[in-house]
Formats: sequence, structure tokens, C-alpha cells
Amino acid sequence: MIIVLKPNINEEEKVKIIDKISSLGFKTNISEGVERTVIGVIGEEDKLRVQPLEVFPGVEKVIPVLAPYKLVSREFKPQDSIVKIKDVEIGAKKIAIMAGPCAIESLESLREIASEISKTGVRILRGGAFKPRTSPYSFQGLGEEGLKIMQQVAKEFDLLTITEVIDSKDVDLVASYVDILQIGARNMQNFNLLKKVGKSKKPVVLKRGMMSTIKEFLMSAEYILSEGNFNVILCERGIRTFETMTRNTLDINAVPVIKQLSHLPIIVDPSHGTGKWGWVIPVSRAAIAAGSDGLLVEMHTHPEDALSDGVQSLNQKNFVKLIEQVKAIANAVNREI
Amino acid sequence: MIIVLKPNINEEEKVKIIDKISSLGFKTNISEGVERTVIGVIGEEDKLRVQPLEVFPGVEKVIPVLAPYKLVSREFKPQDSIVKIKDVEIGAKKIAIMAGPCAIESLESLREIASEISKTGVRILRGGAFKPRTSPYSFQGLGEEGLKIMQQVAKEFDLLTITEVIDSKDVDLVASYVDILQIGARNMQNFNLLKKVGKSKKPVVLKRGMMSTIKEFLMSAEYILSEGNFNVILCERGIRTFETMTRNTLDINAVPVIKQLSHLPIIVDPSHGTGKWGWVIPVSRAAIAAGSDGLLVEMHTHPEDALSDGVQSLNQKNFVKLIEQVKAIANAVNREI
Amino acid sequence: MIIVLKPNINEEEKVKIIDKISSLGFKTNISEGVERTVIGVIGEEDKLRVQPLEVFPGVEKVIPVLAPYKLVSREFKPQDSIVKIKDVEIGAKKIAIMAGPCAIESLESLREIASEISKTGVRILRGGAFKPRTSPYSFQGLGEEGLKIMQQVAKEFDLLTITEVIDSKDVDLVASYVDILQIGARNMQNFNLLKKVGKSKKPVVLKRGMMSTIKEFLMSAEYILSEGNFNVILCERGIRTFETMTRNTLDINAVPVIKQLSHLPIIVDPSHGTGKWGWVIPVSRAAIAAGSDGLLVEMHTHPEDALSDGVQSLNQKNFVKLIEQVKAIANAVNREI
Amino acid sequence: MIIVLKPNINEEEKVKIIDKISSLGFKTNISEGVERTVIGVIGEEDKLRVQPLEVFPGVEKVIPVLAPYKLVSREFKPQDSIVKIKDVEIGAKKIAIMAGPCAIESLESLREIASEISKTGVRILRGGAFKPRTSPYSFQGLGEEGLKIMQQVAKEFDLLTITEVIDSKDVDLVASYVDILQIGARNMQNFNLLKKVGKSKKPVVLKRGMMSTIKEFLMSAEYILSEGNFNVILCERGIRTFETMTRNTLDINAVPVIKQLSHLPIIVDPSHGTGKWGWVIPVSRAAIAAGSDGLLVEMHTHPEDALSDGVQSLNQKNFVKLIEQVKAIANAVNREI
Repeated sequence: MIIVLKPNINEEEKVKIIDKISSLGFKTNISEGVERTVIGVIGEEDKLRVQPLEVFPGVEKVIPVLAPYKLVSREFKPQDSIVKIKDVEIGAKKIAIMAGPCAIESLESLREIASEISKTGVRILRGGAFKPRTSPYSFQGLGEEGLKIMQQVAKEFDLLTITEVIDSKDVDLVASYVDILQIGARNMQNFNLLKKVGKSKKPVVLKRGMMSTIKEFLMSAEYILSEGNFNVILCERGIRTFETMTRNTLDINAVPVIKQLSHLPIIVDPSHGTGKWGWVIPVSRAAIAAGSDGLLVEMHTHPEDALSDGVQSLNQKNFVKLIEQVKAIANAVNREI
Repeated sequence: MIIVLKPNINEEEKVKIIDKISSLGFKTNISEGVERTVIGVIGEEDKLRVQPLEVFPGVEKVIPVLAPYKLVSREFKPQDSIVKIKDVEIGAKKIAIMAGPCAIESLESLREIASEISKTGVRILRGGAFKPRTSPYSFQGLGEEGLKIMQQVAKEFDLLTITEVIDSKDVDLVASYVDILQIGARNMQNFNLLKKVGKSKKPVVLKRGMMSTIKEFLMSAEYILSEGNFNVILCERGIRTFETMTRNTLDINAVPVIKQLSHLPIIVDPSHGTGKWGWVIPVSRAAIAAGSDGLLVEMHTHPEDALSDGVQSLNQKNFVKLIEQVKAIANAVNREI
Repeated sequence: MIIVLKPNINEEEKVKIIDKISSLGFKTNISEGVERTVIGVIGEEDKLRVQPLEVFPGVEKVIPVLAPYKLVSREFKPQDSIVKIKDVEIGAKKIAIMAGPCAIESLESLREIASEISKTGVRILRGGAFKPRTSPYSFQGLGEEGLKIMQQVAKEFDLLTITEVIDSKDVDLVASYVDILQIGARNMQNFNLLKKVGKSKKPVVLKRGMMSTIKEFLMSAEYILSEGNFNVILCERGIRTFETMTRNTLDINAVPVIKQLSHLPIIVDPSHGTGKWGWVIPVSRAAIAAGSDGLLVEMHTHPEDALSDGVQSLNQKNFVKLIEQVKAIANAVNREI
Repeated sequence: MIIVLKPNINEEEKVKIIDKISSLGFKTNISEGVERTVIGVIGEEDKLRVQPLEVFPGVEKVIPVLAPYKLVSREFKPQDSIVKIKDVEIGAKKIAIMAGPCAIESLESLREIASEISKTGVRILRGGAFKPRTSPYSFQGLGEEGLKIMQQVAKEFDLLTITEVIDSKDVDLVASYVDILQIGARNMQNFNLLKKVGKSKKPVVLKRGMMSTIKEFLMSAEYILSEGNFNVILCERGIRTFETMTRNTLDINAVPVIKQLSHLPIIVDPSHGTGKWGWVIPVSRAAIAAGSDGLLVEMHTHPEDALSDGVQSLNQKNFVKLIEQVKAIANAVNREI
């Protein structure tokens, strides 16, 4: 922690700050510069972080030296983490594709979709049962009935499953039906929910909040790891910016930045990242080219009848095209599908 | 709902779209323009909104005509709503000030703070017991113990109380201790929580998400009203922008915009809106000048020892100054404190 | 300047960095912390700022201690600056109102507007002759003809004038007709233009870019002052955010923040800051309550026929209302109109 | 153009609006909906766009049907445009790489850089002579002297050249030395400069403003085309968002979106798009995978001594790596280098 003092600080104020720091058990290194005095504080920064030192008269600003996350950092674990779910690995050489409808609508519909995606070799079926919707008047999902449909269909086609959990009270229920829990963008800072999935030990896909910095994203992952669950897969799904032509602005930079800062696998959701199916394929290619470990993509055999997000869902023909093109990119970066 | 067709649409595609609309029970009004054909769809827009009409070949874009919220709108209720809590009214002539620490820390500390604020005539005590913190290693609040402290202190000083609830499972517990429930910015789209406070009928302060549009903000309020709880007070608390000098960018425009669109009272949180105590007073004056019905402000008798948000908390001296200056502005806009 | 070293830096890399710093004529203060080594660099930070020290192996990050601006800072000049233009002072006790149409359209039209605003006691007439328009097909302003009209009308009603200059080659021409030069938001970082108005010595209203930080805003003012022109008035006019209900998000925080950091006067443009005339009055009240030294506001006697920005222009009736209400707020903060 | 009327509009107001529209030479199509009346206006939308119809009492909102750009649109020219500069084509099968230092520093330095980049087969040398710098105290470029150096070096290594022009008065001078004019992000809406390069007929790389929507970006290109210069290459270089870990947020979505809306070639600047050399290579791969027609990349043989942007410049070793990896991606999307 570095404390920059105001140019007009008096001796008494300076002593008061140094005393406070000492009383907390830290050492100081004082550097008198040309225009400012700077105090370097030596000790465990975490303990100091919670002190509002900026409140002291004479303090201009307080600058942390360390990142606030630990367990998720490369410094803590230099090697890439691989999340294993049955026979599937995420974060290894093989790119993981998770595909399916935004919402589970019926047994027939999900069966048709699962049949088509499994023909392409995709092994993970996505689909929402509890849907967080902006409007109280929109379709809110089938709930547990949807989970049962998903479990049955997954069994028929030998697929793994992922679905969103939106309330800490539902974690055990959802975990009993599916292979991977998804924390949605709107719940990235629902800290009770994070703690609960942290305790469950199930693999978790944590989506970046549309308003969240990369640092906050990693801090939310830290919540899960700090409860003992290291099976976390990060998911970049676009952030909110001033651009209105697309639903979100997919932050492609986040892929190499997170690869540098963290050992956790990272995947990309090009469906929410763009908001229109016509842009999903090129942005999926970009994601894999940038180093993404997988894709979370919306696919529907009849997007024009989808109860949610039909506009951004690929149909069967385009989904096949996606897989082909992503395969070519994966090969170009020494990975495979 | 208005549907703009692509310039190169063929007759078959056009018929397919019109048939779809008819099959849903809507009428159409077709307007052939110089460069585009536009279909006006006549009927209840809500029902059409869920249909992904943009997926149909030949559709360029779909434009809604109506706002998606109903119960919160001025159109639904032209007169200003006043939320009554015991002998206090929010949204009437008198400006409501809610003040207190970010987090409840101890009985002694809260008692001291409550004593000071009640001297200024302020009637509502704020303080967090369940704290949503970015880091799992930060102080997470005293929980139910904090609620008990708050209840006791409020009784001693005849104050009303407001505290945040962060999990749907805690709503009944929190509601049994305090007068007003607060939904924090990070939970503005925690829809299960919104439904639960909607069912509780307790007055609710709903804070705007830091990256939520005014429209989404009103939709979240709609969730609460649609469950039968009309005692909702909106709270502008700053949005996230590219500016880093301040913690958030207080959206002062939101005050008159929301006053125009909705009948609900709106208050402003200048502490989170700026992030530094030195800017809280001028921004509070601005909020009242713009038409805000109240302030939610962080105050601590020893900000340098606060366990949370000390940097943005006013001390007693500055809190007195705030009340004086806000009173002058309130008078200038024909209101009172 | 503070240099944070990577945890795994080797001795050779460390020596190389310290040698580089020494070779540039700076001293170092090395602080070995628990997890990081931090180098405090002592000397004139400006000279060091241009060195890309982050490129050196072993450097984690470089943190500047000082703000990059000098002449505009309160540290350089603690007292508020007052810009005097003939008998008008900006930045003193009296609030300065600059009003008029977005674009100068004709002699008759401007005369009518000037007549109305001068009845309210307003002394500064605004109006654009060179208009920066998003579309090449929109009205681009009357050019020099507009300046002549403005000069004539100002003489008739004894008003001062302000107009925008958009090209460095036009500075002398524009300066020969008007009292105050305006640099628009889109040109806030047109550095050649800034240098040119810096050389001209005319009073300048510098508008904040719609996506410029406060720091960049002050740096652009620094360009003008560094050429010897200290007659700079800053203007907050709203920034671009994700909110689409309003044209821009007026950054009310910027008023007290800039008052703290700089001695220059600051005014607010509520017309661009909101984008709709219905919100101009409450936001103007807020601006003055927050400490703004003035307003730059669009007024048109026939907004429905305006060639530019009619939607955000006040008509005569509402302009009179604005002046009345702003006067009440000005009194409440010990200022006058 | 579609006009949505307020629910409480009276007959007189309605007639006044329709009369106004008729008087402007447009026809109307009135659609009475369940909750709103909507007027479809038939005629050339461009002429109507300048009318502030939202000002009329009874108008709720005005919604344009058409995009405001024409010449740059796919509707105007369905085939991809190819910009030819001597023997180089941009927008054809071959990916165009433009590389070199941020600023031209000396003959020796530029010669060394040019030698290295030309070894990799790259044909276009970039380098700044007129530098727009945030601080007046930073290196502002060598000016015409820099252009002479660039011309000489380009001749020695048979390279094409691109450099930025920042003032309309310099366009002819700069055009006399280099092959491609660059309009920087800060000047994307310097409309006089756009008009001037539009008249010059030289190929132009137009960079997206960091605060500009895709629509505004295309409108700025429209300025150049409307003056008769169709040799425009668009360049996505990152936009400003709330994320601070990277210098900008590269908007990868913009590549397929612009490919859909416009016939113009689009390239990507991964150096400004990320702000750190370590992220330039993965983001370059992503750009080409997404469909970019080229890259504009900062390269310096001694980044640690660069006078500008050293932190984001690739050194020779990494530049060679970039070319190799981008080649693999180009092949995967059926293009070549």
C-alpha cells in the first residue's frame, strides 16, 4: 500500500498517520520527493485495505500495490486449471462447446435440439429452467419441470448439462439434476449465491456481469474458490457500453487479459455478446482465435418460435456452419474440437 | 409494434409475416414508403413483444411503440404517489433524509450516530447488517445481530429504520426488524428477491443498478408492484461510466426523467453517487434542486474507523452543514425539511 | 513516480531498471515489501512520465504520483479565477447565463431571440455559425454571414457574444466578430485548435468531450493556458453513457470535483446535458445548486422551426421560468443572477 | 419516419401535426392502435429528419425508419469495395498489414524498423509525424521533417506509407509525401478535416472515435465519400468503456456489423485496442478471424526507448510471431497474407 501525502500536510498530521499505521502492525518507508511525500507501507496489504486511510487529513490518495484476488491468480497457481466433468475436460487442448436453447420449452423441443447438436459432436447441452427476465410479464421458465426434461434428454443423447441457478435456495435442487451450474451475468455479485455454489463443489460457469470490471469478475470467482470449489469456468458474455447496434459489446480483450491474470479456464458467449444470430459465427471464430477455451452458444431448431432470445439463436444449418468454421480456427491455434 | 421490412423482401416472405401476426390475433396496417414498407401491428403490444419477429426473413427491425412498464407509469397513475411509513411521508412536500453508517458495527457506535442525526431532526436511520462486498475477505456485516442493534437504537431515539436485504430467504427476517427494506444496486435485477419484497408489502427503497438504464430500473420496480406492493421508493445512486475520478457518476437527469415517467417517489444517494465525502454536500444540494424527494446519505461519527465506506461518510460537523444547506435549497423549490 | 516490480524479478533486471532511472537523473527509494518490491523515483515526474518504463522486464506497473496538469491546478493557483469580458465577470458572485439558438438562422430570427433574452437581464448571446453536424446532409451553419448577423444583433441589444470555432484556420476570423470563443465537445482534443485559441488571448469556453475524463478535460485546458491564455471557462455538457433515454448524462459530480482540482470557472450546458427542453429547467437548478458559475442554454422563440436542436431548446415562456427558478437557487447558495 | 402520438393528444393538436407534415410535401398513413395512434410519414426521410417534430404538443416520439448514411451502405453498393494503392489492394483476399512506430523519431530509427518489417513481407509502413497528444508537454512529432524521413525510408525499402493528418490546413502537405492519409480517433468528427480529405482523393484510413457509435462512424465516412473520395478504409481501434485494465475495449463485434452494413473495407488496430503489447497478438488473431481486412499495428525495434506508446509496441521478435500466427488464422478463413 502506498500513501501519497498532500503538499501542504503539517508535521502533526504526518505523525498521526504514521502512528495509525504502526498501531495496526505495519512498517513504513518514507520517501520525500520533489513535490510530494510518499509512504510505503510494509506488511500484509489485505489487512490494510479495509482501513479508510484516505479519510485522514493530509492524505491525498492511497494506492494499493497488490491485486485483491489470491486463489484465482496465476501467482497462486501458475499452471492452467482444467475442469473435469465426467469424460469432458474444460481448459485442456479440446475446445468445449455448450449449446442449446435459451429456455427449456418442452420435452419434444429440447429432444429435437439435443439430437441436432449431438450429431455435430457437441457434448454439453445448455438450457434455462429458471429464467431471469427483465419484465415480470415475460416467460419465467419451467422451473423444476424443466430440469427433469433436461435430465431425461441428456440421458437419451449422452450429453452433459448446464443450467442457470438464480437463487441461493435453489442450488441443491438444481445441482441434483445437472452437471454444471451457471451463474448468470445479473447474479455475478449475488454473493450469497456465490458462497452457496462454492460450498456445492459442482462445476460452475460464472458469467461476467454486464457492468463488471475484470477485477470484479475475478473477485466473484474468488468467492467461489474461497469456499473450496475450484471447478470454476469464467465466461465473457459482453459488457454494456454506449454502442446500441449490438446487444452487448463482447470484450475480446478479456480473453488474453484473464489468461494472463488467472489459471481458470475462460469461455465466451457469442450469443449474448452480440445479440443477433448473424454475428455469432464470426465472433465465435474470434473468441477461439483469441484463446478462449470454449463457447456457450444459443441454438434452437425453430428460433422463430423460441420463447426467449430467438433473435440471437442459431438454427441447425447455421450451427453446423459454426462448428465447421470454429474447427478450422481451433486447428490454426493448435487446438481441436 | 412497428415492423420495418427489408427493401428486397419478396411477396412470399411478406405474406408469411402477415399470416404469423394474424395467427396471433393482431391486425396490421401496411404503409408502403419510398424506400421501405412498414407494418403497424394493432393489438396488445405486450403479447407481441415476446415473439422474435426479427427472426423472420425479410424483417429489418421491430420497433416497440409502448414502454414495457405499466403499474409504475404516470399513464397508469397520473398523481404522485406518497409512501407513508408511520408518521413519515415520502414523496410529499417534506424532503426525507435517511442517514447513518454504511454498516452497523456495534450498539455503542450506532447509538452515537443515531443520537447525532436525530439532533438535526432526521427521522430515518440507515445501516447495513447484510453487506454485499466485492471481496470475500471484507467485513460482511453483523447479520441478525445488527438488526437487533438497529431495532433497539431506533426505539431509543424514535427513529424509523432502513436496511438492505440481499437474499430472498432473508426477507421475512429483515422485515420483522425494520421499517423499510432496501434493495441494493447489485440486486436490482435479482428477480426472486424483487418478487419476495413485492409479496411482503413493506415499504421498499429500490436502488438503481450501476449499469441499469432508467427503463430497466422502472421494470424492476414493476416486479415489486406487480406482486401487489405499491410502497416503492426509487433511489438514484450513480451509474458506472468511464470516469474514474468519482466512484460513480450520479445521473442527475434521472430525477426529472423519472418524475415524468413514473408516479413513484425518487430519492438520491449522494454518498455512493460521488464516493468521497467532500463532494456529498454540493451533490445533495443538486439532487434536491432537481426535484428529488429525499436523500440516502452515509454518516459516521468516526469515519476514519468505519469498517466500510469511511471515505464517503460525512462526519457530524459536515452532516449538520449538509442539513442546513439542503434546507435552503428545499425552500428555494417550495419544499421543506 | 512509483514502480512496482514483479514478484519473480531477478537481480539483473532490477539493476537494469535502477540504472536506467539513474541515467535519466533521478534518485530511487527502494522499499522491500512482503510480496512486492516498490521503487519510489525522486525527481521531476514530468520528465519521467514520457519514459515507457512498463516495457522493462520485471516491471509490473508504473504509478504516477502527481496529476499531469499544472497551470490549471489549484496547487498552482489556490484562488478562484475570474474571467472578465467587458463589464461581465465569470466565476465571481454573479451567475453567468449564455443563451440563444443552437444555430444562427437569420437576422430576423436572432433579433427576436436576442430581444427576448435581454428582457430577462441575460447579457451573453450564444449562437452557432460554423456547425459541426454528424451528417454531411444537415445544415452546416451560415459561416461568416452568421457572425456578421450576430455582431449586429449584439450591438443592438448591448450583449456579449459567444460562438463556436471548429477549425484552427478560422480562429482569427471568428475572434474578430465575437467576445468569447467556444470549443465544442467534439474538438476538445483538437490540439492544434487549442493551441491556436491559446495564442489568441480571447476568452474561451472549453466544452468537455462527451467521452473525456475530467483529467483529460483539464489537460485540454492546460493546452490553452500553456500558450499564455488564462481566460478559460470550463463547460460540463454531459458525457456519453449507456443510458439512451437522455441525449447525454450530465455529470453533476464534475462541478465540485473541478472546483476542487482547478481554479478555473466552470459552467454547465443543460440543453446538451439532457437533450430535451422539458428536463432543462430542473437540471439547470441542480447545476447552480452544485456550484456552477453559469449556464449555457439553448433558447429559440420558435423551437418547432429551428434548423438545429429544436427539441432541446426552451421557448420564451419556459426561458423566463428558467431565469426565475435559477434565481431562487442562486440566492440559496449565496450567489445572484 | 414514424410519429407516435401521446395517448391524451386532442384533435386540434393532431390536425396541426398532419398539416405540418403535408406542408412539407409528405403523405401520412394513420394507424389507430389500442393504446397509441401512430403516423407513418411517406416521402424522403432525409428531408424530414431535420424537422424537430418532437417539439409539437401531442408527439410522444419520432422514430426514423432508415439509416442516415447512404453512400457507405451495402444498400447503395452491395459488393465489397477494394481500395487499390499502387500494387496493394485492401479489402480483397489478401490481408493488409500496416506496421511501424507510433511516432517517427529519426531516420536511423525508422530505417531500422522498416528494414525489419519489410523482411516479413509487410508492405505498408505506418508512423506519426503530427502527433495528437493529451499533454501539451509530450513529444508532438517531427512534423514535415518526419514526413521527409518517411518518404525516404519507404523508397529505400519499396514500402507504401500511412501517416496521420490532424488539421485541415495540412492535408495537401501530408498528401504530397505519403500514400494513405490517416484520420485519428480524436478527429473522427473533425468535419472540416473529413471534407478536406474527401476532396483530396487520397486513400484514407478513418479510425473510429473512442466515443463513437458504429452509426456515427459510418456517418463520418459518409462525409468523405460525399466529397467524392470513395477510397476509404474503416479502422476499429477500441472504444472507451468502464474497463480500466486495458487502454480501450476493442469492439470485435464491429467487424461483422460493419461488414453487413457497409461495402467499405475494415481493418483493426490491436495496439490501441488493447494498450499492451502482450495482448496484441491474440487480439490480432481474433480480428482476422472475425473478418477484418487488415491490421494497423505498432512495432518498434527498441520499444523501451520509444518516444510514444512504447508499452503497446511489438518488438521485432514478437512482430515476426504476430505475422506467423496471423497467417495461420488467415488461411483458416480462406484468406492470405
